[in-house]
Amino acid sequence: MKDKYRPSHADFTYDAKYGTRAWHGGGRASARETIGRVAAAAVAKKILTSLYPEIEILAWVDSIKDMKADVDPATVTTETIESNIVRTGDPNAVDPMTALIKETRSAGNSVGGVVECVVRNAPAGLGNPVFGKLEASLAGAMLSIPATKGFEIGSGFQGTKLTGAEHNDSFYMEGEKVRTTTNHSGGVQGGISNGENIIFRTAFKPTATIMTEQDTVTTGSEDTKLKGRGRHDACVLPRAVPIVEAMAALVLCDHALQHRAQCGNQ
Amino acid sequence: MKDKYRPSHADFTYDAKYGTRAWHGGGRASARETIGRVAAAAVAKKILTSLYPEIEILAWVDSIKDMKADVDPATVTTETIESNIVRTGDPNAVDPMTALIKETRSAGNSVGGVVECVVRNAPAGLGNPVFGKLEASLAGAMLSIPATKGFEIGSGFQGTKLTGAEHNDSFYMEGEKVRTTTNHSGGVQGGISNGENIIFRTAFKPTATIMTEQDTVTTGSEDTKLKGRGRHDACVLPRAVPIVEAMAALVLCDHALQHRAQCGNQ
Amino acid sequence: MKDKYRPSHADFTYDAKYGTRAWHGGGRASARETIGRVAAAAVAKKILTSLYPEIEILAWVDSIKDMKADVDPATVTTETIESNIVRTGDPNAVDPMTALIKETRSAGNSVGGVVECVVRNAPAGLGNPVFGKLEASLAGAMLSIPATKGFEIGSGFQGTKLTGAEHNDSFYMEGEKVRTTTNHSGGVQGGISNGENIIFRTAFKPTATIMTEQDTVTTGSEDTKLKGRGRHDACVLPRAVPIVEAMAALVLCDHALQHRAQCGNQ
Amino acid sequence: MKDKYRPSHADFTYDAKYGTRAWHGGGRASARETIGRVAAAAVAKKILTSLYPEIEILAWVDSIKDMKADVDPATVTTETIESNIVRTGDPNAVDPMTALIKETRSAGNSVGGVVECVVRNAPAGLGNPVFGKLEASLAGAMLSIPATKGFEIGSGFQGTKLTGAEHNDSFYMEGEKVRTTTNHSGGVQGGISNGENIIFRTAFKPTATIMTEQDTVTTGSEDTKLKGRGRHDACVLPRAVPIVEAMAALVLCDHALQHRAQCGNQ
Repeated sequence: MKDKYRPSHADFTYDAKYGTRAWHGGGRASARETIGRVAAAAVAKKILTSLYPEIEILAWVDSIKDMKADVDPATVTTETIESNIVRTGDPNAVDPMTALIKETRSAGNSVGGVVECVVRNAPAGLGNPVFGKLEASLAGAMLSIPATKGFEIGSGFQGTKLTGAEHNDSFYMEGEKVRTTTNHSGGVQGGISNGENIIFRTAFKPTATIMTEQDTVTTGSEDTKLKGRGRHDACVLPRAVPIVEAMAALVLCDHALQHRAQCGNQ
Repeated sequence: MKDKYRPSHADFTYDAKYGTRAWHGGGRASARETIGRVAAAAVAKKILTSLYPEIEILAWVDSIKDMKADVDPATVTTETIESNIVRTGDPNAVDPMTALIKETRSAGNSVGGVVECVVRNAPAGLGNPVFGKLEASLAGAMLSIPATKGFEIGSGFQGTKLTGAEHNDSFYMEGEKVRTTTNHSGGVQGGISNGENIIFRTAFKPTATIMTEQDTVTTGSEDTKLKGRGRHDACVLPRAVPIVEAMAALVLCDHALQHRAQCGNQ
Repeated sequence: MKDKYRPSHADFTYDAKYGTRAWHGGGRASARETIGRVAAAAVAKKILTSLYPEIEILAWVDSIKDMKADVDPATVTTETIESNIVRTGDPNAVDPMTALIKETRSAGNSVGGVVECVVRNAPAGLGNPVFGKLEASLAGAMLSIPATKGFEIGSGFQGTKLTGAEHNDSFYMEGEKVRTTTNHSGGVQGGISNGENIIFRTAFKPTATIMTEQDTVTTGSEDTKLKGRGRHDACVLPRAVPIVEAMAALVLCDHALQHRAQCGNQ
Repeated sequence: MKDKYRPSHADFTYDAKYGTRAWHGGGRASARETIGRVAAAAVAKKILTSLYPEIEILAWVDSIKDMKADVDPATVTTETIESNIVRTGDPNAVDPMTALIKETRSAGNSVGGVVECVVRNAPAGLGNPVFGKLEASLAGAMLSIPATKGFEIGSGFQGTKLTGAEHNDSFYMEGEKVRTTTNHSGGVQGGISNGENIIFRTAFKPTATIMTEQDTVTTGSEDTKLKGRGRHDACVLPRAVPIVEAMAALVLCDHALQHRAQCGNQ
């Protein structure tokens, strides 16, 4: 490892930038650094709950490779998610997903997938019109998690295939409250939350470290081969769920405090 | 407009946050504010070129609704993109895309799509390991553009359907330079550019203002109907291309200056 | 002016940093840029007053050269300060200060002095313990005003000549409110306001541009002589008063919003 | 201590802001937190030295109470400063200052003073014209140190008593280098360093904790008396010297990196 760049790892880019790297354990490129984010989010969640007692932030594994779970963001519970080792919100997906990961590990290979996250009972008003849009903060936060390659909120990339007439979320009154009939917006309009569920998805690539021989180069600029060793997750998705929740809590807490600063207690 | 919230616009969220809104013209929610970003990017591009004379930033319309262009990010030119009104990089897509937009406008409807962007000849080393990852900066910047719902870099969401063996970018030597055989990483590994083309895609929802009657509510909390009026783009994608390029230039300029601060001239 | 560095101006340092400078008018080194601060402070004062209806921010000329005014920060009024051209808070100092400035101008020379500022009826609780201390924010803000050379809060430099027994501000109860018998602290203890008057002083050097010949060098590295021309204030102190007030308002507004974010409405 | 507010400490202001405080040891109000600054400055000094090999940052005790040292900032050495327990740069001041502190301690009282700091061999060009002036950064950094009440650079408050003709620093050529005959500017003109010695002074109030009975109030809003106990410095000045140096190093390192980002290696 000391002399070879692991493909699709941060080995080469660190060397290119700093002229040095921590080759055992991955150093700052290891997802172990996210423990600080999860710890901080425990505080952020306390602050959020003190401001918005009903707020809930839940993430779950929505897909692994091409295997998609069937989860309703409006009703999924932490109990369901935490009751299975894959941390998916769909009880029917647990066994096939578990089997897929085991097969993949046996083959010395790896898989990725998508984590979905919902924020329920956030108030309307969080976020800003131009600088500090709520969706921009969430996108930046999610892409700061190791191994992420994409972010989408509400209708996301699939929404680009709809027409405006299909995509627009009609407003209606539910008692005193302004609601929308659909939620293609994913709970955010113009940078600011609208009181509907905030829903977004984050793509995680397959784990870079695999137990199969790959082509690479040495730090001395020679072509070579490399085969992974040691304990590595064949699929990081289950471990990514609390990280996604943590980053969502930190972003929402920042915006909740900014909102209170600007608009007072609401 | 004064008394009715336009569906999927920022009307309601502004009112919810500030208790007031600029109802004619959209105020700060209008994409007109992006003119400042494009102006700033003209300066950013000068700085980038002074540091990296070969650097190029090009964006183009990659899809409109379900109509996908066929563009090679490695070879597409500004001349091709700017030679057609749709700003796509695929000459064969110009006529069908133009026809689709015209039909959509005639029907009083709207469409969205995806803008793709490539940064060519950026050096290895831009970005940071944990705070200020290059992909996180790009994601936050793209989701700050009005009407965006998604961001993906390199293999993105499709990459989650590959195995690690398929997804990893093998290294090889090209003369003195470390290169990768594939570019699923999209030019960024562990938060830092690796010298390959930086490639990312941004999803734009269909224009919210349509010339068709929709359900909505009044500022006085009553259900009502609303039909758009005035001059509105049935498809914002062609106009989004320079905004995506501008935000990419601003992000890369920030990172280039940070890199020079930390690592000197390289 | 184009080829000669004015002594104690920013001419040389701009050239040293940027290799270029705006030699007519002073460019960004001109105190004209502070108009934006004063404009912004008009908004900041509105926000402050909405949060703390009794708050008052007053600055005045406390000394010019070795001529010191006699002003009570607890009772001085805007009416007194704005009623005289020197903007001092001491009616008896107006004539001698005015005469001093006129004599100085006639002699082609210049003078500096000290502006004092009080914030009355600010609440206890503004500021932070380590990062973002209130006195640190004020010091940074005051030294950002052109021509400033010093800042002191409460007892300041003179306070270093007292013993702790003399300097400490004893607490006592005034009804429900905790008060101090003296105010050597200048209204701030441990980075946070204590509800007493916030009092600080800012030193302004004598105007650099004088109508007398001085030694200097050319941009071509030759020794030369230079004599000022044009319209220049022989004493900037009266014009500095609203700038000091403006920066104080901006700092307090920032801290008031931060305080509301963290601690709610109080 | 638990139920009484120590005069001129942060006890009351913490309670006023947070409704809670760490009453044993001072919590975040203890100058113990500055250990992190000194540690960070060790790194900052390495960076500064790598950029500017000749740069030197030295601070020393310039006065205690009304006892003033006689120190030449151009020639004072770390050896002199660190050779005596008071950390003054004037060998003749060591004994009287030491005696003064001992007497003060015996009397259960405390004293303050002034720390002076010089940065030698910094390049011309550090700092910015409006936002991020070098003197503003230094002022904010110094006033963030516990127990500080004032900051002045170059001629400072005394300089306000000079005329412009006396105060201006004439330029002359020393070989290829632009120099000034005097240094009332303290090495900074218009927010940017001019290559002369950067000289500034920071005022420290007498230690708040004294072994003498003082009037104060309880957390239950009753008047009471309080007498300090435990180990407390009768004079913090000697311990403040490395903190001043540390903050100066951090500010200069920030500005050096910003300067390299903007202007390249110079």
